[in-house]
Amino acid sequence: MDFSSDTSAPAHPQILEALDRVNSGTEPSYGADSETLKLKAALAERFETDVEVLPVASGTAANALALSIVCGSMESVICHREAHIERDERGAPEFFTGGGKLHLCGGDHAKLDLEEVKSVCAGIQRGFVHETPPAALSLTNLSESGARYSSNETAALARIAHEAKLKVHLDGARFANALVSGLETPAALSWQAGVDLMSFGFTKNGALGCELIILFNDMIERFPQLQARAKRSGHLPPKIRFLSAQALAMLEGDLWLGSARIANAKAQAVAEILTVEAGARMAHPVDGNEVFAHMPDELFEGLLSQGLRAYKWIDGSVRFVCHWNTSQKDVDDLAAACRRIDK
Amino acid sequence: MDFSSDTSAPAHPQILEALDRVNSGTEPSYGADSETLKLKAALAERFETDVEVLPVASGTAANALALSIVCGSMESVICHREAHIERDERGAPEFFTGGGKLHLCGGDHAKLDLEEVKSVCAGIQRGFVHETPPAALSLTNLSESGARYSSNETAALARIAHEAKLKVHLDGARFANALVSGLETPAALSWQAGVDLMSFGFTKNGALGCELIILFNDMIERFPQLQARAKRSGHLPPKIRFLSAQALAMLEGDLWLGSARIANAKAQAVAEILTVEAGARMAHPVDGNEVFAHMPDELFEGLLSQGLRAYKWIDGSVRFVCHWNTSQKDVDDLAAACRRIDK
Amino acid sequence: MDFSSDTSAPAHPQILEALDRVNSGTEPSYGADSETLKLKAALAERFETDVEVLPVASGTAANALALSIVCGSMESVICHREAHIERDERGAPEFFTGGGKLHLCGGDHAKLDLEEVKSVCAGIQRGFVHETPPAALSLTNLSESGARYSSNETAALARIAHEAKLKVHLDGARFANALVSGLETPAALSWQAGVDLMSFGFTKNGALGCELIILFNDMIERFPQLQARAKRSGHLPPKIRFLSAQALAMLEGDLWLGSARIANAKAQAVAEILTVEAGARMAHPVDGNEVFAHMPDELFEGLLSQGLRAYKWIDGSVRFVCHWNTSQKDVDDLAAACRRIDK
Amino acid sequence: MDFSSDTSAPAHPQILEALDRVNSGTEPSYGADSETLKLKAALAERFETDVEVLPVASGTAANALALSIVCGSMESVICHREAHIERDERGAPEFFTGGGKLHLCGGDHAKLDLEEVKSVCAGIQRGFVHETPPAALSLTNLSESGARYSSNETAALARIAHEAKLKVHLDGARFANALVSGLETPAALSWQAGVDLMSFGFTKNGALGCELIILFNDMIERFPQLQARAKRSGHLPPKIRFLSAQALAMLEGDLWLGSARIANAKAQAVAEILTVEAGARMAHPVDGNEVFAHMPDELFEGLLSQGLRAYKWIDGSVRFVCHWNTSQKDVDDLAAACRRIDK
Repeated sequence: MDFSSDTSAPAHPQILEALDRVNSGTEPSYGADSETLKLKAALAERFETDVEVLPVASGTAANALALSIVCGSMESVICHREAHIERDERGAPEFFTGGGKLHLCGGDHAKLDLEEVKSVCAGIQRGFVHETPPAALSLTNLSESGARYSSNETAALARIAHEAKLKVHLDGARFANALVSGLETPAALSWQAGVDLMSFGFTKNGALGCELIILFNDMIERFPQLQARAKRSGHLPPKIRFLSAQALAMLEGDLWLGSARIANAKAQAVAEILTVEAGARMAHPVDGNEVFAHMPDELFEGLLSQGLRAYKWIDGSVRFVCHWNTSQKDVDDLAAACRRIDK
Repeated sequence: MDFSSDTSAPAHPQILEALDRVNSGTEPSYGADSETLKLKAALAERFETDVEVLPVASGTAANALALSIVCGSMESVICHREAHIERDERGAPEFFTGGGKLHLCGGDHAKLDLEEVKSVCAGIQRGFVHETPPAALSLTNLSESGARYSSNETAALARIAHEAKLKVHLDGARFANALVSGLETPAALSWQAGVDLMSFGFTKNGALGCELIILFNDMIERFPQLQARAKRSGHLPPKIRFLSAQALAMLEGDLWLGSARIANAKAQAVAEILTVEAGARMAHPVDGNEVFAHMPDELFEGLLSQGLRAYKWIDGSVRFVCHWNTSQKDVDDLAAACRRIDK
Repeated sequence: MDFSSDTSAPAHPQILEALDRVNSGTEPSYGADSETLKLKAALAERFETDVEVLPVASGTAANALALSIVCGSMESVICHREAHIERDERGAPEFFTGGGKLHLCGGDHAKLDLEEVKSVCAGIQRGFVHETPPAALSLTNLSESGARYSSNETAALARIAHEAKLKVHLDGARFANALVSGLETPAALSWQAGVDLMSFGFTKNGALGCELIILFNDMIERFPQLQARAKRSGHLPPKIRFLSAQALAMLEGDLWLGSARIANAKAQAVAEILTVEAGARMAHPVDGNEVFAHMPDELFEGLLSQGLRAYKWIDGSVRFVCHWNTSQKDVDDLAAACRRIDK
Repeated sequence: MDFSSDTSAPAHPQILEALDRVNSGTEPSYGADSETLKLKAALAERFETDVEVLPVASGTAANALALSIVCGSMESVICHREAHIERDERGAPEFFTGGGKLHLCGGDHAKLDLEEVKSVCAGIQRGFVHETPPAALSLTNLSESGARYSSNETAALARIAHEAKLKVHLDGARFANALVSGLETPAALSWQAGVDLMSFGFTKNGALGCELIILFNDMIERFPQLQARAKRSGHLPPKIRFLSAQALAMLEGDLWLGSARIANAKAQAVAEILTVEAGARMAHPVDGNEVFAHMPDELFEGLLSQGLRAYKWIDGSVRFVCHWNTSQKDVDDLAAACRRIDK
């Protein structure tokens, strides 16, 4: 019963088949190859707009590099107090921006509170040299608590940000899960809602290791800067074709959406089991592939002792993560384990 | 006739087979997986000593991360004026060290001049607050001009460095080519010669994208710092098992040495063709898989017009790079092209 | 009626006299001069312990430099959400530490809440590579809301910090005001209470421009690092004797304590006037030279229209700051102005 | 016989008188005071053009802050291999630019070689992501070897730099000495020759501690960025009026030029003594207040044993520095000491 993380999953077989397919002959290095060109075209089609794209090896790299082209060393990024960029990236945003700051806000379910963001934006004094003014807002969809922003919610935040002359970054490590949960289009949930640039994650959803930084609209002209920053941080590997091929394979036949649907469905099943069989209480809406369940310590320990792999979260709940390869057996075993515990 | 770079090559089929083999079931993320454990053991065997290892996505990442644990933000690294870390990494060492400096030295064939290094080391005044004292020496084997340091040459440099309390870093992007050229053991050409930590490249030699940072001896205790720095720079991807599996496949049956032997042999053939058929003059010893040939512009243009892909180097010569997959046809075509030119 | 800031004040005449006195003959540069040696001895006497001292030009420099020798680029500093280092230094701590983070806590009157600090310290996982562990705690005495920490309060925080292996930094921009308010000795309110290093401010208290970084106990061995960091950030001016002479003049005859007593007494008078004559409500304890008064907007505007210079604070109150040179006339005028307003 | 450095000198009495004069009443902090306004006007008059000015506490701060607004973290600064910013500032340019690089060139007497600069500029490939392109050129007048650039020489370098889209920075730590040596106007030797921004030193020439960053022409619009960077690095002290007052006093009645004339004349006398009386050979032209003399070790030791204070320079010569307060007695004593040595 491994519900520890979607990063523990193997890669989807179609990813490896794709690598095989592109593995012949020489290709220009550093992104000038034919796979990366195809990827750019495929994304333009999926997102219904021109984009620039840089594939990188990790989500932290995607977030920090993206933020570094919208937040200078003397500026800050508005984000949620529980955001991955604040809590789980070992100061990568501060490192890549050269000492920029994160301006922390609150909000339920790790989603930014609109009123608090409004108030922060209203207080910006760019000319006041003592303060570090925000230059960007970063939101995470799915949030760190597994909750989804709708395109309307995204647009409302983006509107405030843009009025205050901030750029809007979307951390989409679980963008696919958010999409299939809300039945919205990639375009609607990103640039049409005001997102200027995004981190688009494939690793948790079945890739070997592939995250994309996607630039929309006027961000596109910052692509050379992004490439230079990628080079300087070791994120411009020579054989980029093998990163791009992974992303292409995920997009082909909408493998990414299918995988996310499977993961989300498994999470729904887990949530039901925990509620019905174990009497647990959901800490957050189960909008995607993550379940956060409040449960008595004895129950959690009882499950651990039966082989569960899952972690306590900072809010005191227990986090269960499903993915494209979560087995039905694991779900069934969880149900059985719950039933076995004397509550 | 593509002699542009060894980074343009595809991956060796055994690499992809290895990925397939390890792609099942869940695994702990971030380096706690079984492949990475196996890799560590395999390296210990090849290098005949305990090591720590961190696989990363690019050579720039390997070099800059490695240097960042031996050179602080107020210290410097002695390296050759033409070193990759100085000329081709967009300031990555300065970025990863937080503003450290490179202390440039000269020397023939992009190999550090022993006397100059001696003189720099003799002049270090650690207590003199105005200067930026060297804390490490970095050498590249094969050098940027394709020349090899023997274990004796490495040891001579390392001895001076150690006496001055510097750590010794080896940029081994083409370590395999240096090894098979010199008929020395991995141990002899690294830690036994005084190397404290090294970047060990597989990408140019047949991997999809995999470079290792290897720590020897007392560097091993800095491994937690290295991991933290890797995390902070986006170089701790969750599914590290797929990086480690590449390195393991390269080590298995000494695929890495076989591939390097092929590349080196092709380079010898190219050098002979250029000398004999085209009257070119070698700018540097052809110790590995790279050939630097001085030739008249008309000759170079004549080859380009017949389909050659190769670049002019900073010393005015033309660089030809061979790799594990350089075809005999390309070599034969080059010979034919040379003969066709009216000299 | 200028109550805008203690940084608007002129310098005390004795400071200028001291500069005159030391201004003859050549002296070694960069801190090896005789004034700086005398200053070190004078501080050791006042603080009843050995110290190292570096005079710098601004409070931001003092804080950020001090923090940079106790917090690495991958670590963080626990401080109050309203601390000067978080709100008013344009990211200087992040800059000087090379990308370190501030870990924000709450607490009344801008004083750190003991329980929250306890809980943060309890949660530190140094081996967990994703998080940025605290390495230091910084407290401000007087706090940004003008409140004082007693030596007992300081010691309670320091004890928790030390148990968690953090160093303790004191931002003492208004240390003199805190001291004379609490009738404690410099030693009792600093190293005896567990402070490892401090920023000790003279500029607000009558200097031209002189802040000290003072190192206690085992911090003393980091003095060479502090000097190197000072040099690298432009804070090792050649003629340091003129900074040290200012500090010496402040210490001589306890000018610093006398000046703080005057400022604090004036603040008490202002607080009484605002309470009695204007019906204002104190937002925070008036422990030093600052008064934070909640008052109706009409009252504030009425005072401004009569020539008051004072700023609104982030908590909605109005801040009045007194200093060694605040005139009795300004205080009397304020009383008259209050009486003149129709409440 | 103290010829160790012009930074060992005391301050000119007129400087202290000026501080006294401005020391009354409250003034706005952080550069909005009346002295700083007067200074800006006085500089505009001396330089015959509009300027912006920021007074800072050290020459390292002036250089590094100035460079940080013309060289980004992924760019470089062309400078002489022996420049102060390369050799004597403990990596301050790298720190303030966030990891930018210095691109070192040669040239006699520590003056940039025009042909080498031309060749570096010709090789800039801004779109080539692997290299760190120069964004600025920094020259030092007087050079580190005490040699002067004429306005023609400055203009020739600036022309090449501007054609390559670089900004031109002048390190004018000894600008006054260069000016009075060449009989040129401040304007002719700075912006009229193509200098975009400069560090203008007063400390070595008689101030307590005051260096100016001066922005010309289109650099003026980067003044807010300069202020923010100054704040972030602790170089925006509250009572800037006391820095500005020093600079004003230096400009008044051309005290700065008079002081430089005295220093230069003393250096000429020293050079003559060393040549005639001691048979020393000048290593560099004596254009300002510094003398670099090649002499046998026995001679140098003989002078040291008679009380000389002077340092060996990196080129093997002995450096003698004069300043506004160098006594005739020291000069006479040097002559006597030379004569006393048996050569």
